[in-house]
Amino acid sequence: MTPKEEVVAIPVGIRRVAGTIFAPENAVGTALFVHGWNSSQAEDIDRARTIASFGYICLTFDLYGHNATSKFHSAATREDNMLDVIAAYEVLEKVKKDSPPGIIGASYGGYLATLLTSRKPVRWLVLRAPALYRDSGWQMPKASFDRTDLNAYRQLVISAKENRALEACSRFQGDVLIVESECDTIVPSTVAANYRTAFAQAASLTFRRIESADHALSKPVWQDDYSKLLINWFKEMNARDLRIS
Amino acid sequence: MTPKEEVVAIPVGIRRVAGTIFAPENAVGTALFVHGWNSSQAEDIDRARTIASFGYICLTFDLYGHNATSKFHSAATREDNMLDVIAAYEVLEKVKKDSPPGIIGASYGGYLATLLTSRKPVRWLVLRAPALYRDSGWQMPKASFDRTDLNAYRQLVISAKENRALEACSRFQGDVLIVESECDTIVPSTVAANYRTAFAQAASLTFRRIESADHALSKPVWQDDYSKLLINWFKEMNARDLRIS
Repeated sequence: MTPKEEVVAIPVGIRRVAGTIFAPENAVGTALFVHGWNSSQAEDIDRARTIASFGYICLTFDLYGHNATSKFHSAATREDNMLDVIAAYEVLEKVKKDSPPGIIGASYGGYLATLLTSRKPVRWLVLRAPALYRDSGWQMPKASFDRTDLNAYRQLVISAKENRALEACSRFQGDVLIVESECDTIVPSTVAANYRTAFAQAASLTFRRIESADHALSKPVWQDDYSKLLINWFKEMNARDLRIS
Repeated sequence: MTPKEEVVAIPVGIRRVAGTIFAPENAVGTALFVHGWNSSQAEDIDRARTIASFGYICLTFDLYGHNATSKFHSAATREDNMLDVIAAYEVLEKVKKDSPPGIIGASYGGYLATLLTSRKPVRWLVLRAPALYRDSGWQMPKASFDRTDLNAYRQLVISAKENRALEACSRFQGDVLIVESECDTIVPSTVAANYRTAFAQAASLTFRRIESADHALSKPVWQDDYSKLLINWFKEMNARDLRIS
């Protein structure tokens, strides 16, 4: 049966962010999608429908500074977007109280997802091409970051002690799927390596590379590859959880 | 069709170790099984038959100091057993020249498998409850190791720079499956964490934990869990490789 879809306005302080809830009947869990910088919830809609068909209540939303709030694009900070993610998480938390949400984040959204785990219980994490940033400048506009400095930072081997996002990963005890793009020039493979070596306590860890793909998965075949990896992972995790419970 | 099975005697210098080859028709690859300390190829036979049915020529064998050579159990060193593994690898290498063997190692066999990757091309690695040892004492009888010291060593967080096996892992660029037993008192979870964080260059990494299981997988349900994980992983890797080629 097709999941029910509902457009929602999620309050974040005095702001609002636009979201969409995909609600199947008899849900087994919840999943929050967090899109990347310069993207929107549109990138997540198809996958949210698919994951909803597996019995997960899904929520997609537009980060502040994107889509309807794109006039604030140059002003939005990581702090702003972290508050968006927390507010969206709390929507799902209320919808299904017996099971904490899992998070599916891409790029900047993956980075925010890892930080969320240090503030909220998160059941599992899917990180596609997760980005990494220096801890400093948290309240600086994200659009103002020095690209040269950022590129250099992303070439470094960084331990969990040296970065808040990686430190959060090192404490995370749920299931983790990390997907990297083989030909990613925005987030090089060093970054995915930093992430996956940080997850020393994860209940399970799955790292996959999409052959030939770029950061944005700009060809349909790469989008399909990612969807297949995601679906396989959900099937395996579901099969395990159903047996245990 | 049932794979052909053949008992072989593998020369290792002036010694011989007993092995079994499982040869399906039209093989797509080869797989070497390396058993754990105080075990024998018997632990691998069923799984070798299964993996052979997926089109892999499999080789199981008895490490020196085990089964027919158990009277040398108290004398066998890691150097001895490493030579066994290399000799067994070379058997498979000759059987199918166009594709380097993958290795499936359990406990001590997993440790030896990782070390093999620094001496021979290895296509992929499956490590079940891989053990870890100090580099020193390489030519000392394995049975003479100080158990208290070993247990203490296995509680430590060890980087790839500090251990030859972990260093080999840090250079490995193939696909990796690591399976740990949740209630393993021989190889605690610290060790699996050291292994999986070492694999910073792996093409893919899959880490799974068998719930409630002990080190030896002494209950049939845990053996089944491991077989299922192994089969799932083979199916996924095969599907990917078939599409690429």
